[in-house]
Amino acid sequence: MPGIREPLLPVPGFSAMGINIGIKDTRLDFGVVSAQAPCAAAGVFTRNNFPGAPVLVGREHIAGGRLQAIVVNSKNANVATGLDGVEHARQTCRALGDALGIAPHLVLPSSTGVIGVPLPIGKLLAACGEAPRHLRADRTGLETFARAIMTTDTRPKAISLRCGGATLSGVAKGAGMIEPHMATMLAYLFTDAQVPAAVLQRQLRAAVDASFNRISIDSDTSTSDTAVVLANGQAGPVDEAAFGAALREACVYLAREIARDGEGATKLIELHLRGAASPEAARALAKSVINSPLVKTAIHGADPNWGRFVMALGKVFAHPLRLEELCIDFGEPGADGPPMRITAQVPAAALLERISAYLRRPELRIVITVGHGPEEITVWGCDLTEGYVRENALYTT
Amino acid sequence: MPGIREPLLPVPGFSAMGINIGIKDTRLDFGVVSAQAPCAAAGVFTRNNFPGAPVLVGREHIAGGRLQAIVVNSKNANVATGLDGVEHARQTCRALGDALGIAPHLVLPSSTGVIGVPLPIGKLLAACGEAPRHLRADRTGLETFARAIMTTDTRPKAISLRCGGATLSGVAKGAGMIEPHMATMLAYLFTDAQVPAAVLQRQLRAAVDASFNRISIDSDTSTSDTAVVLANGQAGPVDEAAFGAALREACVYLAREIARDGEGATKLIELHLRGAASPEAARALAKSVINSPLVKTAIHGADPNWGRFVMALGKVFAHPLRLEELCIDFGEPGADGPPMRITAQVPAAALLERISAYLRRPELRIVITVGHGPEEITVWGCDLTEGYVRENALYTT
Repeated sequence: MPGIREPLLPVPGFSAMGINIGIKDTRLDFGVVSAQAPCAAAGVFTRNNFPGAPVLVGREHIAGGRLQAIVVNSKNANVATGLDGVEHARQTCRALGDALGIAPHLVLPSSTGVIGVPLPIGKLLAACGEAPRHLRADRTGLETFARAIMTTDTRPKAISLRCGGATLSGVAKGAGMIEPHMATMLAYLFTDAQVPAAVLQRQLRAAVDASFNRISIDSDTSTSDTAVVLANGQAGPVDEAAFGAALREACVYLAREIARDGEGATKLIELHLRGAASPEAARALAKSVINSPLVKTAIHGADPNWGRFVMALGKVFAHPLRLEELCIDFGEPGADGPPMRITAQVPAAALLERISAYLRRPELRIVITVGHGPEEITVWGCDLTEGYVRENALYTT
Repeated sequence: MPGIREPLLPVPGFSAMGINIGIKDTRLDFGVVSAQAPCAAAGVFTRNNFPGAPVLVGREHIAGGRLQAIVVNSKNANVATGLDGVEHARQTCRALGDALGIAPHLVLPSSTGVIGVPLPIGKLLAACGEAPRHLRADRTGLETFARAIMTTDTRPKAISLRCGGATLSGVAKGAGMIEPHMATMLAYLFTDAQVPAAVLQRQLRAAVDASFNRISIDSDTSTSDTAVVLANGQAGPVDEAAFGAALREACVYLAREIARDGEGATKLIELHLRGAASPEAARALAKSVINSPLVKTAIHGADPNWGRFVMALGKVFAHPLRLEELCIDFGEPGADGPPMRITAQVPAAALLERISAYLRRPELRIVITVGHGPEEITVWGCDLTEGYVRENALYTT
């Protein structure tokens, strides 16, 4: 299934479900993941100054480093809904806690969708009561959960990795309002490895910084971004470095899938920028290119309009570059034939034709060398299409 | 004529022309303005770290505060063209200087269009030789000049104002790659008022800061932004404050016309933000809203999706706000009927319907109150449409 890296493995000790409760028409809109016992938990959340009600409640509940269940609805973000919104998030946690026989503060609530519309709380409370009989410990449980959290996503995103004797499975959703800062839209990871909450939090932050914080679909930062990992410890201890690497690999996979499935997107762009003087310069320059509407539309049109890369690098006023040190490589030399390199010299027409042909592919790699500095970074994005505009001109109505 | 605020007045002592020299197919692509004698001159240019060759040469030529002619081509920006590009800009100034009998350093060169393609210098040099016989001191001269500097603009932009006994006329072009910083795409203003170059420079910078620096079409900052004013003094001295106000009014008019005629745009958005704690907060918050792709597409679809305004204000991490102090007013109370105000409360459906109807207009005014601070700002932008994507996916090819 596109978006799901096979095999998708259920994690021992966790069960999950996704159903339709009538917030969307017929598609899945309500999901729960439940663990048999309290888990070590870590989370990072949006830096948007107007976080959604579930983010406010979720931050409280995860503060102790322990969680046992997650409850998510899609189609309604429960953001900018005032004190009622916060009370609705609390009620949902209480209702699911009652149904599962666990304390409300061990439940993390999430909502994603339209901002500024009251949550249909009646539907949610009824669904929490029904949740236990839908929970499944098999692959299908996790798959339906991954579908239930989707908004404008065209496909679910999920991955499983093995780490020693433990399993790590993660699911995520993305699509629009995506330039996460310190978090992502929604990503949930589950493992039976035994990892202390403090280690988990440090490793999650590092993994998020190398993955979700490096993607951009439209430069808009959601009010609901949430990434959470739960470890139930059933598989016993694992090598810490190996687990950190697995967590990072899972987050990078999910982040790439979110970029690939951006609203209206037809192409995944992987941009590697190297030779920067500082980490700040590397990030600012790479983000400026991956966010530039003119770069994104040129790539959509397979137009080798490299001048727009120059413009996008040049508008990062704080980090000036030398044009004669700049070079832009399209594709992987070798794998994609002879190098396709743009430098300060005006390129030959034949080279531009080869680059245009390359830009018609659905997955692109572009390497920009900006100087002789020691810093480099990889970021991911997507093209800007008429589909993005169509989708967003008529989303709530 | 749309885009030209009538009456358009020629300025005594200046003549102008615009012709086709074969860079574009048949549309005008080459323009000159020439004064009878050297003028006091002031200019501001792009802050992009890769300025075009004409900007480099233009900065040199205007350094002495005197200019007598301006030469512009469209369709080719002469940016990222190396030392050849700089030499081409110098050759163009020499050729026009020779033809007009003035020193090359009194000529300001400009080029606008595609980046990274060598200037067709032969065509430009031939055109400079022919320029004198096309120059006209009447309205038509200025009108054809305004047309010759257009790229993806759909109409010329021009304005004339009277200031005491003097005339001030300005022309500009915009369309894409527009989020000027300290300058604009291309704007030229001419006056027969007598104003010292130092005063002119100070007044131009203030006017640009209140106009071109407050528009955004796509958040991309061009490498060619240039705003220049020439004063030949023929009408004698004028009141300094009155002239500064006239210069500002002309720049605001041209900036609004540039935003209205943004690539693919169907709507001009005037956003007034007030109650900010500092000028930096006011600017950052207003720019975040006017640049948000999700706000711009919602306005395109006449979708009263006010949650996207909340998101765009909230993603300015450095300037947090209190949601309960936020209110968003659509239209002018009175002129547009009863107030259409969104606050932290969830709005009634009838109000959202009125706002949606208002958003179908071609010119919108939105006032956002973010708190009780003393600072306010007005910025201008446009909607994001499928037309923008179409135009930019296939611009060079």
